[in-house]
Amino acid sequence: MKAMAQERPKVIILGGGFGGLVAAKTLARAPVDVTLIDRQNYHCFQPLLYQVATAALSPAEIAWPIRHILRQQDNATVLMADVTGVDSAARLVQTNAGPMPYDYLVIATGAMHSYFGHDEWEPVAPGLKRIEDATRIRRTILVAFERAELTHDDAERQRLLTFVIVGGGATGVEMAGAIADIARQTLANDFRRIDPRTSRIILLEAGPRVLPTLPEDLSDYAARALTRMGVDVRTSTRVTNCHQGGVDLDHGRIDAGTIIWAAGVVASPAARWLDAKHDRAGRVIVRADLSVPGHPDIFVIGDAAEVRDKVGQLVPGVAPAAKQMGVYVGRLIAARVAGKSSPVFRYRHLGDLATIGRRAAVVKFGRLHLKGFVGWLFWSVAHIYFLIGVKNRFIVAFTWLWDYITFQRGARLITDVPGGDEAKAQS
Amino acid sequence: MKAMAQERPKVIILGGGFGGLVAAKTLARAPVDVTLIDRQNYHCFQPLLYQVATAALSPAEIAWPIRHILRQQDNATVLMADVTGVDSAARLVQTNAGPMPYDYLVIATGAMHSYFGHDEWEPVAPGLKRIEDATRIRRTILVAFERAELTHDDAERQRLLTFVIVGGGATGVEMAGAIADIARQTLANDFRRIDPRTSRIILLEAGPRVLPTLPEDLSDYAARALTRMGVDVRTSTRVTNCHQGGVDLDHGRIDAGTIIWAAGVVASPAARWLDAKHDRAGRVIVRADLSVPGHPDIFVIGDAAEVRDKVGQLVPGVAPAAKQMGVYVGRLIAARVAGKSSPVFRYRHLGDLATIGRRAAVVKFGRLHLKGFVGWLFWSVAHIYFLIGVKNRFIVAFTWLWDYITFQRGARLITDVPGGDEAKAQS
Repeated sequence: MKAMAQERPKVIILGGGFGGLVAAKTLARAPVDVTLIDRQNYHCFQPLLYQVATAALSPAEIAWPIRHILRQQDNATVLMADVTGVDSAARLVQTNAGPMPYDYLVIATGAMHSYFGHDEWEPVAPGLKRIEDATRIRRTILVAFERAELTHDDAERQRLLTFVIVGGGATGVEMAGAIADIARQTLANDFRRIDPRTSRIILLEAGPRVLPTLPEDLSDYAARALTRMGVDVRTSTRVTNCHQGGVDLDHGRIDAGTIIWAAGVVASPAARWLDAKHDRAGRVIVRADLSVPGHPDIFVIGDAAEVRDKVGQLVPGVAPAAKQMGVYVGRLIAARVAGKSSPVFRYRHLGDLATIGRRAAVVKFGRLHLKGFVGWLFWSVAHIYFLIGVKNRFIVAFTWLWDYITFQRGARLITDVPGGDEAKAQS
Repeated sequence: MKAMAQERPKVIILGGGFGGLVAAKTLARAPVDVTLIDRQNYHCFQPLLYQVATAALSPAEIAWPIRHILRQQDNATVLMADVTGVDSAARLVQTNAGPMPYDYLVIATGAMHSYFGHDEWEPVAPGLKRIEDATRIRRTILVAFERAELTHDDAERQRLLTFVIVGGGATGVEMAGAIADIARQTLANDFRRIDPRTSRIILLEAGPRVLPTLPEDLSDYAARALTRMGVDVRTSTRVTNCHQGGVDLDHGRIDAGTIIWAAGVVASPAARWLDAKHDRAGRVIVRADLSVPGHPDIFVIGDAAEVRDKVGQLVPGVAPAAKQMGVYVGRLIAARVAGKSSPVFRYRHLGDLATIGRRAAVVKFGRLHLKGFVGWLFWSVAHIYFLIGVKNRFIVAFTWLWDYITFQRGARLITDVPGGDEAKAQS
């Protein structure tokens, strides 16, 4: 065991996502002891999670062990543990491995999908936030085709070949486009009794347009592009129930074998741990320096925080925002340890982007609006650039190029999971 | 739905491993309808499964959807279903998707690991036969290091850093070498409180030497190479119990956090389905044409069959043997459909090989005995050559080269599984 300098301030960071990881790295040269705690052993590149869910990439290509990323940072310790609470009076983080003292606490625990009070929909309508969610959705989609090939009942076959995606934000649009690609191209010749090209892919959005955070011209383009790919795009359509047989709408019902939830998120329990003020999505309302009111040494960043920019606009829950907050808090703690002060946090919005299937994307980058193949190229290069690890970048680039040429998807495995018997075909 | 020619003989193949897949392909031009049934949707390249278990490769790099492999073979249908029995009088295979009639039946359902009547050891000593086993073992190994980093108890830390592999055949030797690589190299700088290089890796073999199917000089070399890598090789050592705390031996006991079972296999339930004569490992004792005595239209091949060569030697449970049987049975059925007869099955033994860590292997290929780095190069080229799919070959070759240069392993993810809470660190 290595000796640890006991006298240096202890910074505990909860969560190894974009915000937490960048905060830890920003403190690399500060005279502090950093402990990063996560319940997983890996950092997941969430923007590409939908590609794991749709069998284009393997989990290991978009995830990397946190301790490996920080292995050369001598002042950082990584622990895999479950956090159960924060005792801000005693300055302790409660974990399943015992209490851990801190001088500064950075909470970067992110968000989970939310069913707006209908958690009973979760078993039939999985969301997409973690690696396990992605492999579960991948299995659900692939098993639907397998069961359709087995059944002798026409109505059941049609139901199994109907895929509903709830939510028309970036994740919903990307999932709908990718499932359309799978059905129309990847699997086109793989079955004998069914024709996967007859699958119905239905994207439901409660609001008036898909990709509501993007300018209207790009929303319109995305909806048209999806329709061209054979996706049935239905805006202003609200889901009132999800069940084994499909979804109920405010007007009508869709029989579906697969439902994917991309409609909403709720922040991690940070607000509960701190008994802090939070918004409806559970995000802690932080001060202009990202600290929690009444707790100047506790910071909440990324999707767990409600942060507003100078014109009062909510900072969106995207990777660049979380990273900017991580850098800001890292620098603030380093400054404070050195007895200096810091300016308030300023968010700089870089842009918005979403892919639509295998060769189109919409991108808003400053004043630049890109769409179609040029947008897709921009999107691809940006995502490969931000991946962690030279090897991952190379393999993902090669895989995309390969799949682009061959129309294939290499990770079409149906593997077992908790609960398990979904993976077995049923008649 | 495509029309199917109803008048052609129906060949049902159970199992999409090496034997079943090759049998299906061999029948590509025969005037028969082939149906391949497997409970999984993928063919797994089992010789590289230990590399998934030790985080070197991702599951999708060694597995490929069966229906994709056979997509251009018009006379083949692939179904994902569970087989529950065979009604040989009515010529029906019973499945969870209903009964399916056959004229010829090829059973290629393989083998599972066996605990010699001690199935209660399975939860603490996982074996390695399926993709799910490999990701489970990967998680078990990685979680052991994570828990060791968390614990404050010295004895517990030492126990967690002790890895026992039961069985000194090729799988056991490969697992021991790979775990030694992980502990001594891959993870060397990733922890702060523990030094993974102090891990104990213990390989237990009940017989007098490791790799008993190889010539003695290669066995000796393998044992010496493992010892040099820091593996504690103990031959003539019998395990009498496996439990949460470790393993009991006929003399003594080893406290261990991880136990991996590589000691024995038992054939699939084919013999029970057919009520056929079988050996102690459950393999159906087949005739010289691989048919089941009394059932000239039912064949058992691969690990599910007990086949002896002309000098009475048992044909080993390796991929080349299963493939030779698949080709043989495919040709035999094609000949019989054409009204011709076939010679008896003749096994041609190509060789034996096993890797020992990241740059040594032992190979017996005819009269050729290779060891060390030359053996490893031979092993690598042979395995890449036999992988399915140009893309998999390229990615595996690149990954091996990369890992060889950087000492890294890219797939070090701890993901959830049935039962689940193993994945969470405990104090």
